[in-house]
Amino acid sequence: MNGWLCIAGLGPGDEQLITPEVSAALADATDVVGYIPYVRRIAPREGLTLHASDNRVELDRARAALQMAAAGRKVVVVSSGDPGVFAMAAAVMEALEGEPEWQRLNIRVLPGITAMLAAAAKAGAPLGHDFCAINLSDNLKPAALIEARVRAAAGVDFAMAFYNPRSASRPETFGRILGVLREVCEPGRLMIFARAVSTPEEHIQTVTLAEATTDMADMRTVVIVGNSATRRVGPFVYTPRSAV
Amino acid sequence: MNGWLCIAGLGPGDEQLITPEVSAALADATDVVGYIPYVRRIAPREGLTLHASDNRVELDRARAALQMAAAGRKVVVVSSGDPGVFAMAAAVMEALEGEPEWQRLNIRVLPGITAMLAAAAKAGAPLGHDFCAINLSDNLKPAALIEARVRAAAGVDFAMAFYNPRSASRPETFGRILGVLREVCEPGRLMIFARAVSTPEEHIQTVTLAEATTDMADMRTVVIVGNSATRRVGPFVYTPRSAV
Repeated sequence: MNGWLCIAGLGPGDEQLITPEVSAALADATDVVGYIPYVRRIAPREGLTLHASDNRVELDRARAALQMAAAGRKVVVVSSGDPGVFAMAAAVMEALEGEPEWQRLNIRVLPGITAMLAAAAKAGAPLGHDFCAINLSDNLKPAALIEARVRAAAGVDFAMAFYNPRSASRPETFGRILGVLREVCEPGRLMIFARAVSTPEEHIQTVTLAEATTDMADMRTVVIVGNSATRRVGPFVYTPRSAV
Repeated sequence: MNGWLCIAGLGPGDEQLITPEVSAALADATDVVGYIPYVRRIAPREGLTLHASDNRVELDRARAALQMAAAGRKVVVVSSGDPGVFAMAAAVMEALEGEPEWQRLNIRVLPGITAMLAAAAKAGAPLGHDFCAINLSDNLKPAALIEARVRAAAGVDFAMAFYNPRSASRPETFGRILGVLREVCEPGRLMIFARAVSTPEEHIQTVTLAEATTDMADMRTVVIVGNSATRRVGPFVYTPRSAV
């Protein structure tokens, strides 16, 4: 059985941010599996089958990929950013739990540049001190838990990065999170709304918490909230290495 | 003035994890500046001057790099991992604060694969749910703040990644952090000690909190602490996407 499965991160969009390790896996693959816009980033070639699927079917997608690897195919499951951060690596692990046979397959997770770090790099160094990464989607956890995490993180002055801040199906979540931040943080707290980082549609906007509005975020946006010491320097935003 | 400055992430060690963007900047550079072991990773070539300096002089190093860029040199400041995560990007921003003239220079931060995400990929998907990144070095912040952050993060069930868990100059810090974890988390909580990830010295060890000892960590180790749902599946460790 020569099949294998890689769960690979394509980075935020720019090809120059795809690691050589991921490019090599894609060059060897017989099958690429993933959410439609990510599979679209893979150049078609002879001998490579592209399997694009809709969002919200992560577990089915993971099982289909494992089945192909078990049948001897060389399969790359693609995620945008890093596959281990709110992406396909955990879904594949979940699928493995149900099928002990699959656990003996040749499976590797290949890291990528995750959205918050690409966004932070464009902005300067807003995550240069202790920080949290929080998925604001409440598909898989209660909204109250998300709010409790934001409150706790702000309470001990973590910087924060929010993934999936807002979607059509839950337009009110991000407004509630802004409300929590306004209870705990000062109005001048800096926030960065980074949309479609490293793509032609890139838009990066730094505002204060007082100025932030829900429509600054959508599903292609990662939101960074500075800590109490985060400040502007020239065209950049950064969080000092020392605590206040 | 054609000088420029890039603050670039070399990833955790393996050349296959260096982005093409960073490789291109290194190929164009006239000067590379950084901590000795990171500069050692850059192949010497004609026209490139390597400036290696000791640790704990980050601000001097940043100023020297900015001075060279201001003088028209093409300078890459190298960090291991990602330059925005407990690395040189924040130090360069800090140096910029003192010299408004430097703020007009052509400066870019080039992201890299940070240690916790490389370690997570090797282990499976332990950071597949909300998580924090905490620098355990108390050079730049009070030990009490570090402990408060660990306690708060564990209290709302974040997974955690610890950078710089232990050094010769503060052997007791990590023991105190283990103590905090033992107060808040169950003894079976999974922890991953990932040393020198993606290098020939790579060593990755998964243990329970009850089994963890301070000597499992050193300055080349990143420590990942799972959340309450983190579990083993086959050879992997992962944190489910859903909250319990």
